[in-house]
Amino acid sequence: MLAVQPSHYGYFGPVGTFTHQALLTLPPLRDEPTPYPTVGLALQAVRDGDVAAALVPIENSVEGGVTATLDNLTYGEPLRIVGEVVLPVQFTLFARNGTLLHDVHRVLTHPHAAAQCRDWLAANLPDAIITEGGSTAAAAAEVADPRSRFDAAICADIAGELNKLTPLATRIADNPDAVTRFVLVSRAGAVGPSTGADKTTMVLFMRDNHPGALLEILEQFASRGVNLCRIESRPTKRSLGDYCFSVDAEGHIDDARLAEAMMGLHRVCKDVIFLGSYPRADLTEPIIPHGTSNDDYAAAATWLQRLRG
Amino acid sequence: MLAVQPSHYGYFGPVGTFTHQALLTLPPLRDEPTPYPTVGLALQAVRDGDVAAALVPIENSVEGGVTATLDNLTYGEPLRIVGEVVLPVQFTLFARNGTLLHDVHRVLTHPHAAAQCRDWLAANLPDAIITEGGSTAAAAAEVADPRSRFDAAICADIAGELNKLTPLATRIADNPDAVTRFVLVSRAGAVGPSTGADKTTMVLFMRDNHPGALLEILEQFASRGVNLCRIESRPTKRSLGDYCFSVDAEGHIDDARLAEAMMGLHRVCKDVIFLGSYPRADLTEPIIPHGTSNDDYAAAATWLQRLRG
Amino acid sequence: MLAVQPSHYGYFGPVGTFTHQALLTLPPLRDEPTPYPTVGLALQAVRDGDVAAALVPIENSVEGGVTATLDNLTYGEPLRIVGEVVLPVQFTLFARNGTLLHDVHRVLTHPHAAAQCRDWLAANLPDAIITEGGSTAAAAAEVADPRSRFDAAICADIAGELNKLTPLATRIADNPDAVTRFVLVSRAGAVGPSTGADKTTMVLFMRDNHPGALLEILEQFASRGVNLCRIESRPTKRSLGDYCFSVDAEGHIDDARLAEAMMGLHRVCKDVIFLGSYPRADLTEPIIPHGTSNDDYAAAATWLQRLRG
Amino acid sequence: MLAVQPSHYGYFGPVGTFTHQALLTLPPLRDEPTPYPTVGLALQAVRDGDVAAALVPIENSVEGGVTATLDNLTYGEPLRIVGEVVLPVQFTLFARNGTLLHDVHRVLTHPHAAAQCRDWLAANLPDAIITEGGSTAAAAAEVADPRSRFDAAICADIAGELNKLTPLATRIADNPDAVTRFVLVSRAGAVGPSTGADKTTMVLFMRDNHPGALLEILEQFASRGVNLCRIESRPTKRSLGDYCFSVDAEGHIDDARLAEAMMGLHRVCKDVIFLGSYPRADLTEPIIPHGTSNDDYAAAATWLQRLRG
Repeated sequence: MLAVQPSHYGYFGPVGTFTHQALLTLPPLRDEPTPYPTVGLALQAVRDGDVAAALVPIENSVEGGVTATLDNLTYGEPLRIVGEVVLPVQFTLFARNGTLLHDVHRVLTHPHAAAQCRDWLAANLPDAIITEGGSTAAAAAEVADPRSRFDAAICADIAGELNKLTPLATRIADNPDAVTRFVLVSRAGAVGPSTGADKTTMVLFMRDNHPGALLEILEQFASRGVNLCRIESRPTKRSLGDYCFSVDAEGHIDDARLAEAMMGLHRVCKDVIFLGSYPRADLTEPIIPHGTSNDDYAAAATWLQRLRG
Repeated sequence: MLAVQPSHYGYFGPVGTFTHQALLTLPPLRDEPTPYPTVGLALQAVRDGDVAAALVPIENSVEGGVTATLDNLTYGEPLRIVGEVVLPVQFTLFARNGTLLHDVHRVLTHPHAAAQCRDWLAANLPDAIITEGGSTAAAAAEVADPRSRFDAAICADIAGELNKLTPLATRIADNPDAVTRFVLVSRAGAVGPSTGADKTTMVLFMRDNHPGALLEILEQFASRGVNLCRIESRPTKRSLGDYCFSVDAEGHIDDARLAEAMMGLHRVCKDVIFLGSYPRADLTEPIIPHGTSNDDYAAAATWLQRLRG
Repeated sequence: MLAVQPSHYGYFGPVGTFTHQALLTLPPLRDEPTPYPTVGLALQAVRDGDVAAALVPIENSVEGGVTATLDNLTYGEPLRIVGEVVLPVQFTLFARNGTLLHDVHRVLTHPHAAAQCRDWLAANLPDAIITEGGSTAAAAAEVADPRSRFDAAICADIAGELNKLTPLATRIADNPDAVTRFVLVSRAGAVGPSTGADKTTMVLFMRDNHPGALLEILEQFASRGVNLCRIESRPTKRSLGDYCFSVDAEGHIDDARLAEAMMGLHRVCKDVIFLGSYPRADLTEPIIPHGTSNDDYAAAATWLQRLRG
Repeated sequence: MLAVQPSHYGYFGPVGTFTHQALLTLPPLRDEPTPYPTVGLALQAVRDGDVAAALVPIENSVEGGVTATLDNLTYGEPLRIVGEVVLPVQFTLFARNGTLLHDVHRVLTHPHAAAQCRDWLAANLPDAIITEGGSTAAAAAEVADPRSRFDAAICADIAGELNKLTPLATRIADNPDAVTRFVLVSRAGAVGPSTGADKTTMVLFMRDNHPGALLEILEQFASRGVNLCRIESRPTKRSLGDYCFSVDAEGHIDDARLAEAMMGLHRVCKDVIFLGSYPRADLTEPIIPHGTSNDDYAAAATWLQRLRG
């Protein structure tokens, strides 16, 4: 253990990214958060005890799973997800103070951002030249320089604000519903208490890749009344066609139905990696099917004990 | 409780029936067994404490389930199956000492026995007159009377022997593989220890009769690796199409996989009536699917406990 | 084929039984129906072409399946169920004209009827002597004789009416909801048209008795959205623990979802015995799950054909 | 339709990539293949009729699915997969003629290649400076220039050969089993004939995202005896937690079991996108479970037809 517990977060940076913005929704720690240039380095900082926890993206409603995060959590030294943040992917057009929309002739941004705002740009800045650079955060910093040849940047709000830029147009992404989900990851340790609206993340390796193996796994959940919110196959890196499954299940490891499902998976799978039980960002309480509440499980255990005499 | 524990068995009589013969395969109690004229009366004698236990037929490989037994165990005051006997249904042609096969012109037996020996009779006693009476045991008693107008009886060996008759032809049933299964029933109490080759009997009432309800029940067994040896639907006596299911599962209530299946059924069913865990007559040990041994269950529980921290 | 088509029904008699009463609910044929003393003889009369069709009981809401009928249809020469009748099991106390209820001291009936009216008799005729004879129909005939020493008979309405007796008390069965289901059986031939509220009866023999075999069978129905109204295991008469399943499924063999399920069963079962598609007595139309209507099946076939190019 | 059918392939370039190398395993067309800078542009060239077909990567045994390919095939104008190539990801260290391994001080390659050869470089060129550039193909071209300050490139064999470089060390990837799977994509049209060792790719959109929806889909395959080789969830881009599933199933759309499964999916899914049936690269014939061969399906159809009369 560390002599001194670190008192700051790490995150997948740089400063001014969406991950940074997502981090601001968390209860702040004493010290300033530290950005890391890759997901791997942010998670390694947790393992090394350099930060109390790190925030990294895990899933995007348009792009899908973030494989760097999924694979690092699966194959790296054990860590624990302790929370999640879901953030709308909202792009804003920022400029230096005094610039008006019709003054914008040259826009700097990242290729992803350019792609996701294509329709808005075509409709509102049809004649502007769009230049794609290395990050939206860097674009904002460049535009903040009065000597810049760029008039505006497309970036996250935080990048504009950090660079004291003025928003010219907000919510300009073509898909207004796009969101990214981030997870807060700490060292493996005790699991936080159940809140009644929790999610549990795990990775399942099948004993063999026989037909019906995935069906068998899903039935372990279904027969206990546990719903899944996410399932994603990932290669095991052994051979083509050999997959493991990253899964988010509704409920907390302290819920009897999820506990029994997990023990069932432990028995039928080659390996089950528990990545944490944590409060859901959307605070949605699970629908608990008839007969699967903690009370139902306790009553069944009492009944069995009585039968055994 | 009784001041004095009864020291004899009851059985579905009369003396000389197959149930009586099956009873002789059990370890004897101090006193002579008592025959009862119906299954219901034999089981009531157990409830009333008149006998230590009663042996009654529950299933025949040709006729199917014995509904009097199934329904009494389901709807009557709780009892407990503590053992089973499987007996080949072997009929023998018995006559008075001195009678030879070609002397047999008149045969007395019960209609079921006559039906099950029809081919043998046609081949071996084509000209004999077959008379059907009330029971094979009574037929033997009648033939034992030197003044009887009948030359021979078709009955169980025990009836012939009790009446000091001589076997003229054995194993004369047309279906040589027919067997009857009997269960030994005692008052509800502590369950006997697991022997490694056990069977558990229970009755399952579904919460509602929705399509797929039976599938749901079977999945409770399958997802824990528990095999069924018998499943029989019985009407719940409420309305046509409303069934309960009498089930024999491999294993003992002390086996983790069966215990979890039973708790699962307790949660999803309207009612589960446990009728006992007891040694199998055939001493066959169950095939335990990968991941479902007691050790696997214990390892899973330990793993979960460790995760919870 | 017969030179002359028979123009009357057979039924499980004698005259005056519930089966006879059930027969009267059917559209009459030209000639009087013929009673047969056993289910087997009634069905054999169909096979022999002696009757156009026979009505036999198949299931009782209290007693369960009628094994004589189930086994004869399964193992005998193929027949076809073409209709069903569901009849409340209503007992009536009949006496000779002029007898009043308080005159009744001696009652004659069949043991089943006595058992099913026990509470009513205890409450209304506490001092009467109840004698159990061979059939309720015979009891009515006996009471009809002015010289009879019996004052009343418990029997079906039809038996009272045929014997010109007077009802003293109706609906005296302790379980007012008990019903018996009868099936009308003809020789195998073309199936009648779908009515939209049909039932299909079949018997399923599993290829081997492996664990999960029943689950596999049920999934053939479930995956096509076919609900079951009845499932009953019957011994195959080979060895203990070897069962076949008698099943009633909602729908008609001309319904695409049932046809596909049946073809699936034909592929996975050792044998499938089709016993007929016929209108339901309760006229209840099935709930057709999303995507399983005939139109849905036709659209899927068209889609596939188009894909194949 | 085009006046002139194009007589060359397109592929995800540039020249000298693994996709290019995979393309060389296909039967050549008359004209030289055309590289495209993105998967999207390569597939668009197919749609536009500029190329006869395009080869693009779809899956890597280490990195997982290629989302650009998966999403373009799912959401773009319909295309058809007509073949696949599986290629080991083998990196080679190439240098100009005359350079020996101990002369290598500066290596140029792409970041992915550097990462996948890290252990080999540490063991064999511990003191070399590794520079990461835009593509392995470009690295080979740079090293081919005698004035280059780089001594060697890590790239695919094809890039080394095209640039007339000399291999210094082959198979230097740390994971020797890594493979990439490519698909050959043409315009939608008639499906090629079954070869007995085929694969079918499709994308499944669930009607609603209810718990158990994935289980329901998998059962459509399982109940017909169809095995899956790959299943991958992808966001539908509507909301977080709304997925579609990209699936490779064993067999050909002309196989009865797969055809019935696909029709079943068409009925229960919101949408099924058929992406093609094509010969498997590994030539592995599927295990056909009992009762699911084309003959079994044909026999079941004949049986049903006969029953219907």
